[in-house]
Amino acid sequence: MSTEFELIEIFQHIGAEYYKDNGIITGPGDDCAIFDLSTPIVTSVDSSVSDTHFPSNASPADIGYRAVAVALSDIAAMGCKPIAFSLSVSSSITNESWYIKLADGIKDIAKEFQISLIGGDLTKGPLNLNVTVFGTPYSGKILMRNNAQTGDYICISSAVGRAKKGLDDWVNNKKDSEYLTDYLRPLPKIELGKDIVNFASASIDTSDGLMADLEKMLKASNRGGLINLDDIPITSDINDINSGDDYDLCFTMPKEKFNNKFFKIGEVTEDLGIKLISNKGYDVVIKGYEHF
Amino acid sequence: MSTEFELIEIFQHIGAEYYKDNGIITGPGDDCAIFDLSTPIVTSVDSSVSDTHFPSNASPADIGYRAVAVALSDIAAMGCKPIAFSLSVSSSITNESWYIKLADGIKDIAKEFQISLIGGDLTKGPLNLNVTVFGTPYSGKILMRNNAQTGDYICISSAVGRAKKGLDDWVNNKKDSEYLTDYLRPLPKIELGKDIVNFASASIDTSDGLMADLEKMLKASNRGGLINLDDIPITSDINDINSGDDYDLCFTMPKEKFNNKFFKIGEVTEDLGIKLISNKGYDVVIKGYEHF
Repeated sequence: MSTEFELIEIFQHIGAEYYKDNGIITGPGDDCAIFDLSTPIVTSVDSSVSDTHFPSNASPADIGYRAVAVALSDIAAMGCKPIAFSLSVSSSITNESWYIKLADGIKDIAKEFQISLIGGDLTKGPLNLNVTVFGTPYSGKILMRNNAQTGDYICISSAVGRAKKGLDDWVNNKKDSEYLTDYLRPLPKIELGKDIVNFASASIDTSDGLMADLEKMLKASNRGGLINLDDIPITSDINDINSGDDYDLCFTMPKEKFNNKFFKIGEVTEDLGIKLISNKGYDVVIKGYEHF
Repeated sequence: MSTEFELIEIFQHIGAEYYKDNGIITGPGDDCAIFDLSTPIVTSVDSSVSDTHFPSNASPADIGYRAVAVALSDIAAMGCKPIAFSLSVSSSITNESWYIKLADGIKDIAKEFQISLIGGDLTKGPLNLNVTVFGTPYSGKILMRNNAQTGDYICISSAVGRAKKGLDDWVNNKKDSEYLTDYLRPLPKIELGKDIVNFASASIDTSDGLMADLEKMLKASNRGGLINLDDIPITSDINDINSGDDYDLCFTMPKEKFNNKFFKIGEVTEDLGIKLISNKGYDVVIKGYEHF
C-alpha cells in the first residue's frame, strides 16, 4: 500500500507545463497555490459522489475525467477560458494502480484544455471527488445567467438526453453505443462559450436538465420563456428535456444575431414562468434534478 | 424534509456584506463566482471527513467552524489576508436544523475574519466538508515554505499538543476543559502570518504535527534543522511534537529579527535532516500524521 505522499506525487505535476500561460506562479507543494493575473478570476466547485454522480464501478480514468469535465462546464457557461483546477479525493481504495488510472483520466482533460492542477488533498473516506475550477475571461466580457432580455431567442447547441442514453447503455452493457462518451466523458462546452460570449445575453450549463436549468436562468433574469417543444432536438423521447448530465449550454441571444449553428427552442418573455407549446402533441411537465 | 435548494438558501448569503471589500463582483448564484482584484490570489483546499478529521458526533456548528478554520490556516501560512471561501457539503442528514446549526458555525468564522462564501454545492453522501479558501497579500509579500536560510531561527507561537489534549478531553467528556476550543474551533493564525510576513524567511502551518510539518518546510528549502526539544513549549508530554491539528505556524527568521513574542525551538542548518537534542533527556522520534 502506498502512503498519502506517494499517492499525491502521482497527481503533483499534472498540467505543470501550462503554469506560465495560466498565470500560476506557485502550483501544488506549498500551503497555497498562487495566481498572478491582472484579469478577473471566475471559480466554481463541483462534487462528484460515487453512485450519485457516477456509477461506483466506472473506470477510474473516466471518473477522473468526468469530475473535472463537469466542473469546467461552469467555466464554459461564463464564456471564460479555463486555467486551473484543484482536486480533493476522498477514497478508501488502497490499490495504487487505481490512482494512476484516475490520474490518467485527469491528465487527458488537463491536456485537452491546457489547464493545470494547482492543489488538492487526499483523505480516507467514501469515494468523493471535489473539483474547484478557475477561469479567466477570453476578452473583457463574462457571461452571466441574469441578463436574458425579453424577445431574445433561447438556444442550445446539441440534442438533449444524450447523457441519459449513454448511462442507460452503459448500465445495460451496450459497449459500442455512441452515447457512452456523452455520459462518461462529457465535453465541457468551452469553445461554445468562447463563441457566444460576445453576443449572448445570458447562459447556463445544463447539468440538472434543460428545463430545470433554463428555469433558473429565466428566474435569475426576472423573465419567462415560451418554449416550442417541437424545436428541441431529442435523443430518446420528449422526457429528455428533464434529463440531466448533458452539460450543454442553454443561452439567450438577440434575434438578429441568431444563426443556424444553434437550435432555437423558444423566446424570452416578459411574463414569468415557462410556457410549453407543441403542435406534435407532446405532453410533458418540467422536473428538476435534485441531487439531495 | 427540505429540498436541496432550500438548504442552499441557508448558506447563500454568508459574508455577503464583505463582497465589495473582498473584490467579489459575483457571489453564489451564477455558474461561477467572480473575483476582480488587481493583486495575486492565493488558494488552498481542505477536506474534513467525518471520523477522520472530526468526530461524527461533534456539534454541527463546531464542524462548520472547524472545516473553514483549518482551511484558513493555509492562508495564514502564506502571510495573506483571507477574502473568501467555497464550501461543498456531502451529507446524508435530512434534518434541516442540522444545516442551520452548521451554517451558524460557518457564519461565526466568516464574521470573525470578514470573509465571504462565494459558492459550493450540496450532495447526498457520507459526511464530508470540502472548503476552498482564497486570500490576497497584505502588502506585496507572500510567505513560502521553501526559503528557510542557514542560521535562521526556527520558531512557533504557542505550545504544541493543545488540540490533541482538547480532543482527548472532548472524547472523555471533560466539558469544562480549556483545551476543547483548541480542537473544536482552532484559531487560524492569520494575525501571526500578517505580523511575520515582512521578516520571516519561510512558514508552514502545523496541521500534521510540528515535526512533520517542519520537516516539509526544511525539505522544501533544501535545508535541515537542529532542534532543542527543551525549548519546545508542550501541553502534555514531549510526544506533543508529533501531534496534529494545532494549526500554529512554524516559521524561520533571521536571528537579528527575533523577539520574545515567539518561541525559538532551533536553528536552520546546511546539513539536511532534523537533529533533535535535549539536556532534559527527552527521547522521541519524528512521526508524521498520515491522513491516508
